[in-house]
Amino acid sequence: GKTYKIAVIPGDGIGQEVMPCGLKSLHAASARFNFNLAITTFDFASCDYYDKHGKMMPDDWVELLTPFDAIYFGAVGDPARHPDHITLWGSLLQMRRQFDQYVNLRPCRLVKGVPSPLADPGEIDFWIVRENTEGEYSEIGGKIFEGTERETVIQETVMTRIGVDRILKYAFELAKTTRRKRLTSATKSNGIKITMPYWDDRFKLMSKSYPEVTTEQFHIDILTAHFVAKPSHFDVVVGSNLHGDILSDLGPAVTGTIGIAPSGNIHPEAKFPSLFEPVHGSAPDIMGKGIANPVGMIWAGQMMLLHLGEKQAAEAMMKAIDRVLGEADQSVLTPDMKGKGTTQKLGDAIAEAI
Amino acid sequence: GKTYKIAVIPGDGIGQEVMPCGLKSLHAASARFNFNLAITTFDFASCDYYDKHGKMMPDDWVELLTPFDAIYFGAVGDPARHPDHITLWGSLLQMRRQFDQYVNLRPCRLVKGVPSPLADPGEIDFWIVRENTEGEYSEIGGKIFEGTERETVIQETVMTRIGVDRILKYAFELAKTTRRKRLTSATKSNGIKITMPYWDDRFKLMSKSYPEVTTEQFHIDILTAHFVAKPSHFDVVVGSNLHGDILSDLGPAVTGTIGIAPSGNIHPEAKFPSLFEPVHGSAPDIMGKGIANPVGMIWAGQMMLLHLGEKQAAEAMMKAIDRVLGEADQSVLTPDMKGKGTTQKLGDAIAEAI
Ligand SMILES: CC(C)[C@H](C(=O)O)[C@@H](O)C(=O)O
Ligand SMILES: CC(C)[C@H](C(=O)O)[C@@H](O)C(=O)O
Repeated sequence: GKTYKIAVIPGDGIGQEVMPCGLKSLHAASARFNFNLAITTFDFASCDYYDKHGKMMPDDWVELLTPFDAIYFGAVGDPARHPDHITLWGSLLQMRRQFDQYVNLRPCRLVKGVPSPLADPGEIDFWIVRENTEGEYSEIGGKIFEGTERETVIQETVMTRIGVDRILKYAFELAKTTRRKRLTSATKSNGIKITMPYWDDRFKLMSKSYPEVTTEQFHIDILTAHFVAKPSHFDVVVGSNLHGDILSDLGPAVTGTIGIAPSGNIHPEAKFPSLFEPVHGSAPDIMGKGIANPVGMIWAGQMMLLHLGEKQAAEAMMKAIDRVLGEADQSVLTPDMKGKGTTQKLGDAIAEAI
Repeated sequence: GKTYKIAVIPGDGIGQEVMPCGLKSLHAASARFNFNLAITTFDFASCDYYDKHGKMMPDDWVELLTPFDAIYFGAVGDPARHPDHITLWGSLLQMRRQFDQYVNLRPCRLVKGVPSPLADPGEIDFWIVRENTEGEYSEIGGKIFEGTERETVIQETVMTRIGVDRILKYAFELAKTTRRKRLTSATKSNGIKITMPYWDDRFKLMSKSYPEVTTEQFHIDILTAHFVAKPSHFDVVVGSNLHGDILSDLGPAVTGTIGIAPSGNIHPEAKFPSLFEPVHGSAPDIMGKGIANPVGMIWAGQMMLLHLGEKQAAEAMMKAIDRVLGEADQSVLTPDMKGKGTTQKLGDAIAEAI
């Protein structure tokens, strides 16, 4: 079978703890299906690396990582050690941009066995498509009149036609494959009056090329309210970098826990590797306790296999996750799912089920 | 008793429908307590006005409105008639800025009788303090390379020391009066790496002057998740213009419906009038049906009385709202609260209870 070169970056905090579970499940899948994983593990993109080297990644990180078929990423950052905007912008956010992973794809699905905080959640099953390289996440801006009463800080949001159109296109194409072919655009053009109306215009224009897709748009404020009031309404939700970021923590929270949610940072063309990670971060507060939910990491591995073209293996992994969570009792589920289980116990159960 | 000069602006859509209920309750309060309301109604800040005059407000709106003690505002905008960024920036958002209403204060409270979508909501009772004049809502930026593949749109977020410090101060002062004296700051300094770390720095600095307040900060993405997972955790949440906007739709959704939520656009100094409005907008989709929830408008009136110094009357209004909602059956509650009642029926019940 095929061999895929995978760069593994565990990173910080619970990233280190859930990564072994992710790898165990991936190995189980490769043993059962006809493909191989050639794994190389890197210690950079972590606070430990930063302490040793004064930077988050080696200077040649682009050359190092470009040859891989995919990057499998844990989590990075620990605000008690270094400010987030240094650790994150020196690693994850730089990779997303450098490798032009302009699609951030995040499923929100109510999984049997995972308790939702909603009294009546309905059948939640949708995708969040987040623009992942531009928008509100910019490096331009600065401070003036520093240290005085007039101190003023400015940061620019940048949207390009190329950047907006390609993420919208991805979302429209995905919406075509869903149950109701419904695409929701997250906007805030009533308040953010320069960039957001532009986003709306491009959305409206592109919708003409997709008559089979039902479109709608909501301002981000009321959209978060709808996520709580009727999450089963959605098929695909597309948003800017910041809007997508917010919705893809809120969506999983509504399905029960962000601990199970995966994230694909996808470069749809074949020039650079895509990166797969759990939605949750390094969670220093629960680090070292062995109770982190490994499902986000495992599910991210599932998305990676799908991206690599291993459809059958990906399906088996998804089924294993669903089956184990659906049948698990309190002793297996981690605390974020109201259980008493551990990372390893749940991770092992899923790997075995594959 | 005292006489207060109130400017009433019903605006568009359901703003027109809920305003009479708000006024009826206010009149009931002024009849029972020892004060008078001198009401002047204006037809501007509406799409009808725009159609007639080609602008949302008369040129002398500042002179017209400045003498009032407060502005009582319905809702504005109808995207089917004019784009939001024209109607809103020509009225509500301009007033907030011109009258330096830099505090947007929004309570989130679980009211007995209003069904929450959460299975186990706990005791939700907190305030959202939103910066209301700067930040992400800016008028600077623009488009370049228009109509070409290189088309690029930029909008600037602007934070000033004065602007950030005064809203933080208001939030810290408010937190001192709450049950657990807890203040939560909404940030996103891991992604928005220029303005948001500045917000964090000012927050940290000011916390030193308030040792009695317990502080914490969450990135806006995970904060929205916490709003769903454990909303009873919060006392006061302070956020930038955009973050506060999002949280103050999400918070009320978690307590049941944004239809009951009020919003005070407060200029804490005595130079300009403050503006009180429901959180919900003009809702063209349910306009004309007589089913809009009047509670947001009435509760906004309650906040206005409190702001004017009529503490007793405000308390009576709050009690009336709580009692009517707590005792109401399906025939009185509006559809957003899973009832079959009408705007007028519910509004009358509250006015009578006062
Ligand atoms: C209508 C809109 C411009 C406004 C805002 O974003 O401030 C509204 O959502 C609000 O929260 O008052
Ligand atoms: C860690 C942070 C910079 C990141 C983001 O905002 O993109 C995270 O929240 C995510 O969603 O992947």
